[in-house]
Amino acid sequence: MYNMDKLFLAVEKRGHICVGLDTTIDYIPEKERAASGGDAASAASSVLAYNKAIIDVTCDIAACYKVQIAYYEELGIAGLQSYAATLEYLRGKGVLVIADIKRGDIADTASRYARAHFEGEFEADFVTLNPYMGMDSIQPWLQWADKKGKGAFVLVRTSNQGRRDFQELEVSDAGARSSNGRLFHSVGEKLSRLACDRLGAHGYGAFGAVVGADPQTLAEREETAAIRKQLKNLFFLIPGYGAQGGAAADAALLLHKGNGGVVNSSRAILKAWQTMAEKEGRDFSSVDNAYAAASARVAAIEMRDAILAAAR
Amino acid sequence: MYNMDKLFLAVEKRGHICVGLDTTIDYIPEKERAASGGDAASAASSVLAYNKAIIDVTCDIAACYKVQIAYYEELGIAGLQSYAATLEYLRGKGVLVIADIKRGDIADTASRYARAHFEGEFEADFVTLNPYMGMDSIQPWLQWADKKGKGAFVLVRTSNQGRRDFQELEVSDAGARSSNGRLFHSVGEKLSRLACDRLGAHGYGAFGAVVGADPQTLAEREETAAIRKQLKNLFFLIPGYGAQGGAAADAALLLHKGNGGVVNSSRAILKAWQTMAEKEGRDFSSVDNAYAAASARVAAIEMRDAILAAAR
Repeated sequence: MYNMDKLFLAVEKRGHICVGLDTTIDYIPEKERAASGGDAASAASSVLAYNKAIIDVTCDIAACYKVQIAYYEELGIAGLQSYAATLEYLRGKGVLVIADIKRGDIADTASRYARAHFEGEFEADFVTLNPYMGMDSIQPWLQWADKKGKGAFVLVRTSNQGRRDFQELEVSDAGARSSNGRLFHSVGEKLSRLACDRLGAHGYGAFGAVVGADPQTLAEREETAAIRKQLKNLFFLIPGYGAQGGAAADAALLLHKGNGGVVNSSRAILKAWQTMAEKEGRDFSSVDNAYAAASARVAAIEMRDAILAAAR
Repeated sequence: MYNMDKLFLAVEKRGHICVGLDTTIDYIPEKERAASGGDAASAASSVLAYNKAIIDVTCDIAACYKVQIAYYEELGIAGLQSYAATLEYLRGKGVLVIADIKRGDIADTASRYARAHFEGEFEADFVTLNPYMGMDSIQPWLQWADKKGKGAFVLVRTSNQGRRDFQELEVSDAGARSSNGRLFHSVGEKLSRLACDRLGAHGYGAFGAVVGADPQTLAEREETAAIRKQLKNLFFLIPGYGAQGGAAADAALLLHKGNGGVVNSSRAILKAWQTMAEKEGRDFSSVDNAYAAASARVAAIEMRDAILAAAR
């Protein structure tokens, strides 16, 4: 059974939310930061404690988690130890986790990255990959789908403005089904073909795609809806919700029969305590991890329900 | 002074070689492996000892070093500690080092990666970046050129076969000087414009480009030579030499007035002891790090001289 099948079932059961643990010391209540000495090691341990508090109250709501490695790498070795400990904690809870590492390198190097992130201390269920170097940079990861059911989400169309620079350029791709389209169409089509060889029980390939939910014009809305139709056999990881601007209706454009994707939210959940404390007129300095966790749970439930309603 | 200026001067003085420390336990003489217990921690310490032996005998020949983080990440936390220790050793020698991390992410995340790799335990002089997400994923790294002279090499055209999948697609880029060309031309042109704002003392921007030296047809040879002309103000990091198939004449196509780029070689230097031992009829089991280092020095000098001759 591919992890992508497990993710499909998790969405059936708990909705579309992917909780992004892009945790930095700035997102943690001051009170919980004060205990830390201001150095990288104590910041890393505050981050781990915060992650555990968030995981404890969201693991019955979230379809999966996404851990952005940059936030841990920033703190050096101590940060990466917290990264490994966060993954271990998630494995202990039996929930699925995506390592947001966006790797993309030549075959030999890709094999080493795959070993790094699909077994051992940094083991995750899924990774994110960058396709710029070509399909031979994706290939070495695929044997892990066969071996251990592992999955990946390959960047197709991202949610940042810069996507217009290259991803949205018109290309002539003689190898593609339709010989004209944008670069991201070409990437999507090549991934969709790969998916045919490793199709799971629910119609989605072992490897999926990152597709952002942030249409800003009517034409972009139509283009976004068309992506879901073009890439029927790819499960989507959808960034750009909440802090990055996307809304439930936009995310729903990328879903399919009430499934077909998870929607990531990081800051809106991790920093929910700020919104909640403001609403309740509570002093920020009195907020602790328990309050932050309770706020995160409320925010995650609201988001889950908004997307479920929009995807119906 | 930008690090790219320092690299230009290092090439003037010592030639074009970038020694790639993509070190894995399999490249190290058995005798030196035997001392290790077979676990990740002892593999990581053998790798570090080997790196030091190689650095000691090449630092008067190499223009710079490149450390591929995947080879260390594969060994988990212990591997990343060896990665940090290798960077520290290189800093101690006063030589320039490129962290081959190929990062590419949205602005907030990119800022965190930049802090991770331009200061602290993992501090390097240059990084490699992936442009797929767009120029706003490159932008956050640039402030480090202003702050500390740091540099980057952005993937333009790589040396693997998979480059044909996307990098070599024909695109229509209305924003580009010539509205037609391949994707990598479009990436190169946007980088070249960035370089104009941060031009060093020797005519090259603070940020350069990764361009592979592996033309396989006459048309590709011409295209490779044309890249050097199109991207006059970009210093090149040139992979694909030696084990990956490129030769001195191919690399020379990407150089400019005897400077303008460094040529990476990893396996041909790290595993030079195997070739040497075979030639000398020596038993592999008798080879130690001293012999491997002496072989690496010979291989590096030969490569340096071959490229200098071809670039003349």
